[in-house]
Amino acid sequence: MDPWHGHYSSRAAGMVASEVRALFAVASRPEIVSLAGGMPYVSALPLDQVGQLMAELIGQRGAVALQYGSAQGDLGLRERICEVMALEGIDAGPEDVVVTVGSQQALDLLARVFVDPGDVVLVEAPTYVTAIATFAGYQAELVHVPLDDSGLVPQALAEALGRLAAAGRKVKLLYTVPTFQNPAGVTLSAARRAEVLEICRRFNVLVVEDNPYGLLCFDGEPVPAMRAGVTDGQVVYLGSFSKTLAPGLRVGWALAPPAVRDRLVLAAESAMLSHSVLTQLVVERYLATQPWPEQVKVFRELYRERRDAMLAALAAHMPAGVTWTRPAGGFFVWATLPDGLDAKAMLPRAIGARVAYVPGTGFFADGGGRANLRLSYCLPPADRIAEGVARLGEVVTAELELATTFGRGGTR
Amino acid sequence: MDPWHGHYSSRAAGMVASEVRALFAVASRPEIVSLAGGMPYVSALPLDQVGQLMAELIGQRGAVALQYGSAQGDLGLRERICEVMALEGIDAGPEDVVVTVGSQQALDLLARVFVDPGDVVLVEAPTYVTAIATFAGYQAELVHVPLDDSGLVPQALAEALGRLAAAGRKVKLLYTVPTFQNPAGVTLSAARRAEVLEICRRFNVLVVEDNPYGLLCFDGEPVPAMRAGVTDGQVVYLGSFSKTLAPGLRVGWALAPPAVRDRLVLAAESAMLSHSVLTQLVVERYLATQPWPEQVKVFRELYRERRDAMLAALAAHMPAGVTWTRPAGGFFVWATLPDGLDAKAMLPRAIGARVAYVPGTGFFADGGGRANLRLSYCLPPADRIAEGVARLGEVVTAELELATTFGRGGTR
Repeated sequence: MDPWHGHYSSRAAGMVASEVRALFAVASRPEIVSLAGGMPYVSALPLDQVGQLMAELIGQRGAVALQYGSAQGDLGLRERICEVMALEGIDAGPEDVVVTVGSQQALDLLARVFVDPGDVVLVEAPTYVTAIATFAGYQAELVHVPLDDSGLVPQALAEALGRLAAAGRKVKLLYTVPTFQNPAGVTLSAARRAEVLEICRRFNVLVVEDNPYGLLCFDGEPVPAMRAGVTDGQVVYLGSFSKTLAPGLRVGWALAPPAVRDRLVLAAESAMLSHSVLTQLVVERYLATQPWPEQVKVFRELYRERRDAMLAALAAHMPAGVTWTRPAGGFFVWATLPDGLDAKAMLPRAIGARVAYVPGTGFFADGGGRANLRLSYCLPPADRIAEGVARLGEVVTAELELATTFGRGGTR
Repeated sequence: MDPWHGHYSSRAAGMVASEVRALFAVASRPEIVSLAGGMPYVSALPLDQVGQLMAELIGQRGAVALQYGSAQGDLGLRERICEVMALEGIDAGPEDVVVTVGSQQALDLLARVFVDPGDVVLVEAPTYVTAIATFAGYQAELVHVPLDDSGLVPQALAEALGRLAAAGRKVKLLYTVPTFQNPAGVTLSAARRAEVLEICRRFNVLVVEDNPYGLLCFDGEPVPAMRAGVTDGQVVYLGSFSKTLAPGLRVGWALAPPAVRDRLVLAAESAMLSHSVLTQLVVERYLATQPWPEQVKVFRELYRERRDAMLAALAAHMPAGVTWTRPAGGFFVWATLPDGLDAKAMLPRAIGARVAYVPGTGFFADGGGRANLRLSYCLPPADRIAEGVARLGEVVTAELELATTFGRGGTR
C-alpha cells in the first residue's frame, strides 16, 4: 500500500507515535479531568495587552517582523534572554545564545550536532518524553540514571559512566532537567549539582541542562542553574518562554560554548533558515514593555495553589502504599503505585472513571515506569484537580482490592 | 580551545557556513545595490490590517493561539492551504498536509525521513542553496542534473538514473523547483513535467516538488503543479507563504502520501513539538478575511516591473558574450559570463563598485557554477535595479578586457 516502503531512512524506523500524545485526544473530552497534559494556563496572561503589543509591533516594525531573520535569532531578544538567565545566576552574553523553536528544537539541534548512531546519551529515570523521541530519532542509545527526591543520584551516574567507559562506549551527553523535573517534579540539590558537574568533567561528557520550569518556583527565589558560574563550556543550557509566557509563540533558546553555538546556528539554518521574526519580536516587546516579573509571580501563585490542591487530594484519597513526590515548583507530581499495580493497564479504567494521567512507561526508553503515573496540576483549576484525584483514588483503591483478591500478577 | 573537539557527530563535519549568507552582511550596506538576497518586498503588504488582524485574533482566540498545537498543524489552516493549492490544479485534503516552519523545515524533515548516509539525492544544476546544506547535513551524496531554458533535462535525468542504478547506488529523492526556479529562473515545460514524472516512476524515485514561487507568475494564470493530477504518491509537494505573504511568519507546508505524511508528523514532533499556533492562525485569518488574491496580483505586478527593469538593464549594459535567463515569474535571473571569467573572483570588485550578487558556485555541490551569477530583482525598486545592473555591466566589461589582455586564465 505504501509506494515508498523500503525507501525510508534507518532512523525513520525509530520514529514511533508517543503514547503520551495519543492519549491527549481522549483526555481532552470535557467530562474528563485531565491530569495528563503539560499545557500552561495561558488564560492568566494579559491577553488584551499582548494583542495590542502585536498591533503596535506590526505598525512600527512590520517590515522587519514579517521578513526573514538571522539563523541565530534576533539580537535584541537575545539580550533580553541574558537578563532572564541572570535571574538564575547565569552571566552570559547574547553572542552565545541561539534562539530556537521552543527548547525542543534546541534539543533536536544538539542531537544533530553531537549524536552518531550508537552513541550513548544519558538521561534521568524517568525523563522528558519527547527527549526520548528526539534522541531515538538520531539513533542514540539511551541509558537511564536513577533519581530520587533530591534529583539525579551522583553515585549512580558515576557508576553508569564507569561501566560504559569500560565497555568502550562513546557517551556524548547527559540530558537533565535538574529543576522541577518533568515528569518527576524533583529538584537536584545544590551539593549534587556540583557533584554531577564534576563527574561529567571527569568522564568528558557534555551536560545539557533543560530548564523550562526554573522560574516557576513556589518557595522563595529561583535556585541557581547548573550553568551558573560554569565558564569552561561544560554545560549547554536550554531555556524556554513556553511556561513563563506562551508556548504558542515557540520561542526557546540554547546558551552554548562558542564552538557548539556555531554548529547550532548552522544546524538551525539548514533546519528552518530562520526562526519567526514576528514571534521573537513579540517576546522581546513583551519583556520590554510588560511587567513580566509580576506575571511570573501570578503564575507561581496560580500553580502553587494547584500543587497544594493536588497534594491535599492525594493525601485524602490515595490508599496506603501509594507514594508521590512533593514538587517545589513546575507542573508535575510523580506517583508510584504499590507493587503489583500497573499504571498503564489501569488507564482505561481511570478514563472510564473520568480522570486521565500519563502512565510512567512513556518516560522510560527501557520499559520502566509501569508502577508510575505523572499527574499534572498546571491546567485544571484547583477544584477540578481535587475532583480528579478523588476519582483516581477510587480507581487505585479498586485496583488494589482486585490485586489483593486475585494476587499481585492480576492486573499485569 | 574547543572542549568538545572530537565529540561532534560525523554529520556535523558537513555543516559549513553558506557563502551566500556570509555575503548578505556585506550586501546590506546602504550604498550597495544588492541583487543578492531572495527577500520578498513585504512592505507592499497591508501592514495596518495585518496588525489589526493579530490584535483581533488574540482578543478572540488568544488562549488557543498562545497554547501548544498539534504536530501536524492547525486544521483550519490546512483547509485553506488546500484552497491555495487548488489554484495550481492540486486536489488534496487537509489530512495530507503537514504545516512546517517554512518549506525549509519540510525539506529538512523529508531528508530526515528518507536519507541515510551515502544515499543519493538528485538536484538540478544549479539548485536552491539551502537544499544543498540540508541534504549534506544528512550525509546524502548530491548528484546534479542539468537544466536548460525549459527546466530539468529529462534525457539527462534518465541517463543519470541509469548510471546510478548500474553502479548500485540508492537514489532516494529528486529535489526540484520546477516553476520559476531558484536560482535559474526557468520553468519546467508541461511536456517535460510528464516525462520527469514518468522517468522517476520507472526508477522508483520520489519527486520532491518545491514550489514557493508558483503563484508569482507574470503572464496569465499559474501553471499546474507537477503534483496536479498525481494520485499515486509519486510527488511530495512543498509550499510556502514566505513569498505570497511574509517569511517572518515561517509558515510553509508539505503535501504528502499518507505513509510519508505520518512520518513527517512524527519527525516534526521530535523536531519542535508543534509549530507556532499564533503564526498559523495569523495566516489562516489573513486568508479568511483579507483580499489575498488581490494582494498576490499586487506582488505579481510589482515583481514583473522589477523583472522588466532588470532584463532591460542587462540588455543595455552587459557586454557581448554574457547571457541570462528570462524568468516568467519568481525572483531570479541567472546570468552566465563569457568563458574565462569567474563570478566568484569578480565579486570583491563588484562590491567595490557598489553592487552585490550571489556567485553561481553557491548553487552547486560539485564546484560548478564559476561562470554564473544569481541576480535577484525582488527587493530593490526598479531604478535601483537598473543602477545596480549598470554598475555590474561596467565590472564585467572591465573583467572581460583584462581577460582579453592577459589571457583567459587571468581571473581564475
